[in-house]
Amino acid sequence: MEYYKELKMSREELLVKIQSMVKASRFQHMLAVEKVAGELAERFSADIYQARLAGLLHDYAKELSFMEFEGLIDRHHLDESLKSWGNEILHGKVGYLKIQEDLGLENQEILQAIERHTTGHAEMTVLDKIVYVADYIEKGRNFPQVDKARELAAVSLDKALAFKTMRTMEYLIAKKEPIYPQTLETYNTYIKFLKEK
Amino acid sequence: MEYYKELKMSREELLVKIQSMVKASRFQHMLAVEKVAGELAERFSADIYQARLAGLLHDYAKELSFMEFEGLIDRHHLDESLKSWGNEILHGKVGYLKIQEDLGLENQEILQAIERHTTGHAEMTVLDKIVYVADYIEKGRNFPQVDKARELAAVSLDKALAFKTMRTMEYLIAKKEPIYPQTLETYNTYIKFLKEK
Repeated sequence: MEYYKELKMSREELLVKIQSMVKASRFQHMLAVEKVAGELAERFSADIYQARLAGLLHDYAKELSFMEFEGLIDRHHLDESLKSWGNEILHGKVGYLKIQEDLGLENQEILQAIERHTTGHAEMTVLDKIVYVADYIEKGRNFPQVDKARELAAVSLDKALAFKTMRTMEYLIAKKEPIYPQTLETYNTYIKFLKEK
Repeated sequence: MEYYKELKMSREELLVKIQSMVKASRFQHMLAVEKVAGELAERFSADIYQARLAGLLHDYAKELSFMEFEGLIDRHHLDESLKSWGNEILHGKVGYLKIQEDLGLENQEILQAIERHTTGHAEMTVLDKIVYVADYIEKGRNFPQVDKARELAAVSLDKALAFKTMRTMEYLIAKKEPIYPQTLETYNTYIKFLKEK
């Protein structure tokens, strides 16, 4: 079985650790994101190892309590305004630090892709895009228009990520929920790709 | 006829000046916004004179050319990034300076309400809210759900402005157009009022 040199643990040990952090259905989702992230990396000539590991770990902090996120924000001197946001934002924007603390992961490209996987960013790397899109289209997803997202991801990461961002904003507006400003930055940068033929 | 002391001109002279700046249908819209802004000011205990004048002038710069907006941005040392936005944003965010230059208007409350009338702001005054809402519900407006907006404005400026902001964002997303970040700030501050019963 695979050994993760930078984590100083085998794949088996890592999977046991992840399963201690999240419920079974989320663990299955993380495995599915790992798989499709690897496929996207192959399709778009990115580092398959990085894409798979970022995909596998992306929701590692999804079930932390708000108090745990507050502790991370304080220990790492992050912007206090993060405390006014919920788990949906914090598990990426703050959660990547839990992965760093718990697993000793120091690969900045992977940590950044995990940090950005829910909100995106105005200037995303190919790895950022892969994790952001993989989270949306993994085989277990079955929301309306997921097939449209998969079709777009077959040809363009930019189109697929613009689609995810647009649909996320529509969903939040329909629920009258706040939208994280970085999500709008992602939308404003990438929406033009959806207008192209 | 009314005389505007701070503009050093009569209402008649002001209306002639406005008509030299905008086409006839826009002039009618500005008169209609003046009227409903005055009514809202009466309903919500704001300064009726300020509300009417801001309403009358709000689209004064709507038909300026992009070069004219660039000139205003340069002369007044505004943020260069404004130049990447279109007329829809610029006629408020920059256009209020044209009113100041042309008409000598120095009333900061009125100028601010005009500046904010398209995007809103995270912390709006009652006058800001009145002009923002009046522009949306004046009697000539007949888009879907304008009656819903009018009903909300009968009871709450906060609900009505949240509704306008939400619908504006939905409209821009449907057209795959960028959204000005200040519009999102308005949404994030005021959307909670639409969730209240």
